[in-house]
Amino acid sequence: MSVAGIRQAACIGGGVIGAGWAARLAWHGIDVTVCDPHPEAERRVRTVIENAERALTQLWGGPVSERGAVNFTDDIEIAVKDADIIQESAPENMAVKHAILAEVDRYASAEALVCTSTSGLRPTELQSVMERPGRFLVGHPFNPVYLLPLVEVCGGDRTDSESIERAMAVYRALGMQPLHVRTEIDGFLADRLMEALWREALWLVNDDVATVAEVDDAIRYGAGLRWAMMGTFMTYRIAGGEGGMRHFISQFGPALQWPWTKLTDVPEMTDALIDKIAGQSDIQADGADVRDLERQRDDGLVAILQALKPHGIGAGAVVAAQERARVGARAAETPDLSRAQPLRLHTAQVLPGWTDYNGHMTEYRYLQVFGDAADALFAAIGVDAAYLDAGHSYYTVESHLRHLAEASAGEALHVETQLLSHDAKRLHVFHRLIGSDGGTPVATAEQMYLHVNTESGRTCPAPAEVMDRLQTLSAAHVGLPWPDGAGRSVGLSKNRT
Amino acid sequence: MSVAGIRQAACIGGGVIGAGWAARLAWHGIDVTVCDPHPEAERRVRTVIENAERALTQLWGGPVSERGAVNFTDDIEIAVKDADIIQESAPENMAVKHAILAEVDRYASAEALVCTSTSGLRPTELQSVMERPGRFLVGHPFNPVYLLPLVEVCGGDRTDSESIERAMAVYRALGMQPLHVRTEIDGFLADRLMEALWREALWLVNDDVATVAEVDDAIRYGAGLRWAMMGTFMTYRIAGGEGGMRHFISQFGPALQWPWTKLTDVPEMTDALIDKIAGQSDIQADGADVRDLERQRDDGLVAILQALKPHGIGAGAVVAAQERARVGARAAETPDLSRAQPLRLHTAQVLPGWTDYNGHMTEYRYLQVFGDAADALFAAIGVDAAYLDAGHSYYTVESHLRHLAEASAGEALHVETQLLSHDAKRLHVFHRLIGSDGGTPVATAEQMYLHVNTESGRTCPAPAEVMDRLQTLSAAHVGLPWPDGAGRSVGLSKNRT
Repeated sequence: MSVAGIRQAACIGGGVIGAGWAARLAWHGIDVTVCDPHPEAERRVRTVIENAERALTQLWGGPVSERGAVNFTDDIEIAVKDADIIQESAPENMAVKHAILAEVDRYASAEALVCTSTSGLRPTELQSVMERPGRFLVGHPFNPVYLLPLVEVCGGDRTDSESIERAMAVYRALGMQPLHVRTEIDGFLADRLMEALWREALWLVNDDVATVAEVDDAIRYGAGLRWAMMGTFMTYRIAGGEGGMRHFISQFGPALQWPWTKLTDVPEMTDALIDKIAGQSDIQADGADVRDLERQRDDGLVAILQALKPHGIGAGAVVAAQERARVGARAAETPDLSRAQPLRLHTAQVLPGWTDYNGHMTEYRYLQVFGDAADALFAAIGVDAAYLDAGHSYYTVESHLRHLAEASAGEALHVETQLLSHDAKRLHVFHRLIGSDGGTPVATAEQMYLHVNTESGRTCPAPAEVMDRLQTLSAAHVGLPWPDGAGRSVGLSKNRT
Repeated sequence: MSVAGIRQAACIGGGVIGAGWAARLAWHGIDVTVCDPHPEAERRVRTVIENAERALTQLWGGPVSERGAVNFTDDIEIAVKDADIIQESAPENMAVKHAILAEVDRYASAEALVCTSTSGLRPTELQSVMERPGRFLVGHPFNPVYLLPLVEVCGGDRTDSESIERAMAVYRALGMQPLHVRTEIDGFLADRLMEALWREALWLVNDDVATVAEVDDAIRYGAGLRWAMMGTFMTYRIAGGEGGMRHFISQFGPALQWPWTKLTDVPEMTDALIDKIAGQSDIQADGADVRDLERQRDDGLVAILQALKPHGIGAGAVVAAQERARVGARAAETPDLSRAQPLRLHTAQVLPGWTDYNGHMTEYRYLQVFGDAADALFAAIGVDAAYLDAGHSYYTVESHLRHLAEASAGEALHVETQLLSHDAKRLHVFHRLIGSDGGTPVATAEQMYLHVNTESGRTCPAPAEVMDRLQTLSAAHVGLPWPDGAGRSVGLSKNRT
């Protein structure tokens, strides 16, 4: 699959960042070759990808197309020769990166983008060893690369502006939020901000004012919640009340001159300080290993991204835009409506927030999945986003749900949809929700939809092109057996076995 | 109402912080007197409370009990004389706070807690003017006070440890996360961390490296999403991969010595810099006024808090604990089951994330509200949390939903529940969802529930105490008219008017 012109990628370096890139690229259908000489590299990268797949499935419900393949090599030439983009994520060492970039430059095609994940080294110095420096730039991501949208893009003196544009388009197509750092400085923007906070945090621990857990609590129960959607300036503008930013600065600006931070010094990383931090960090982790912690982090990030999506705030807007693009890509696949079998238009997975205290899917989530299946049916008969925008839609007026078994956390589900009857205004449909065993339904939904003018809210006949597709589907489904459970009412005895 | 022994509170100072305290206290049923000499104080505080009510209703669905009254005065004696807790939120000026605290100290009862919202002044110096300094401490909250859980608690040299304990219990009962700052330093913990980041941000803008919007983007699309649930140390521990915190420090510790931050200096707040920041901030706000921005912020915070709740991560755990306490308080009110009218056990509000692109409540949210109404019914017949823990429950096996009108964003809804029939294993119930006009139902749900052993998943008879309550309810409901729409099946013509 091609994403913004990219079919094949090379990830040089298979650490946490390189593996995160591989996971994001493969999820978007791009084949990836990871190049890392470490004997454990493949195992480590596969572990990160496994974790990433879990989180990405929760975020998106499933991949929009077939995942790209992930291959391994320890030979840079093999990794880069067919790649459209090379993402270098080697250790933060100028000499190491120079050696790698010189070799990448030698073997990569002239059209390939060469990007480095460096969090602080300057691109002008990095590209000094390259013969084709115009295609080189910084694409600095944030951990976990497969979930966090931010990527800082920064060119060096010899970077072509066209390369910057191209890289930003690629990153956007990967569901990221590229931020063009227009002035080349050490550490770019985000790491300078994070480092400033981190230094202060180190002093608080060094001076025994607080433990690492207390410092973390001072962030995550307070300012951190705001930083997830608004940065520091917007937060302070609001804190200024009706007087805005100017009032805030006049009120709190003087406090900047107070000795509230350890401005002038950096704590020396003595063995004693390292022991203290590592020891307190162990207590804070309370026995959880890094995989447990990664899953907690990813669950939280997925939940935050999903929560911000309907509000279009911050990263929520990025997720919403990517979802629209995915829906568009799905809508392009027209299903065959002429086959004498129920349609299989919708798949879902039982997400972490969907289960009750028993670990079973909560009642109303069944109706959510059936509603999504109905949307897929509507799209298949031509009632898509453009159709809705034009002022017509199908509304559900009645549903009869039967719960026959339980769907469990993480279970993969699909819906089989059968048309029972229709006329110009009505659609009568039966959905079966099938669990991961593929057998008898977990639940069924019999639903009636009315074709409406969304402005007036009144029913109206569906147009000929929708009726034509419905006729095709009806002809295919008319001979299917009447579903067990359809046409029944809720009753004390007659409806339950 | 009494919350951790508090019935009456005084808020000295009606700015953004004081008003936020008033909103949080009143929401929890505590009467508040706000003392502020400014002629606009009452209007400003009422505006903040109105915004707060909107956000708190979204977060909690509704208040657990009657809201406390909010009164206004410009006389400290009147404000504090009957107060169990006094929260001072005057400007950050030692002389101003000294004058206020001396007066508060004179008129407050000996048992009252006297707390200051100072974000950085030391309690030992603040309490030096008090005759009863043992009851004085810092309770430093974060904006918006009514949503963010963090409150830093810090005593001075003469503060009683019992006062610290008492204040922490009060703040916890108000749904907050108190963090005891054990070492008295200027700026405590959170503001030192925020200030460090803010200084660096000011330099980036001062030096024209980035605009305020770019700085904010560098936070909210990346590290900010992590800070909403994990602080800086836990984030870096995970970044260390399998090697953990020690590996992270060995890899990134040296970078701390690089000149990535403007360590040694503070930008001078010249008129030119203030103009630059305020101007860029105006562009970033794009015409939105502070109320618009507050609503955006609050919508996002509510969404994040709700999203983190099922995962029990960070602030989500605080919200979950508060919700359990609220459910416990509600369960203590036993409804009268003997009245010949449908039960009114559940209210809800159409939350921002519940609506589709038309601004109408999404289909599956109707079933969510009916499910919550069913839980309220179960609690009323004795099937509460303890009952579930003991291994029995009612499971929904069938639902018939009819959509008769639309519920809109923000609309207040309630459910009326009628028992149609029951036996030892089955409950047959009809719910009507009533909109804010109080008239004909927006939707109805006919549901069948089975009494089950949750371990085996099999049906079993309900015990005598549940059957007794059901018998009372049945005797009261047997004479009610059969609901329009009950007992029907989904059909092309016979079920729709």
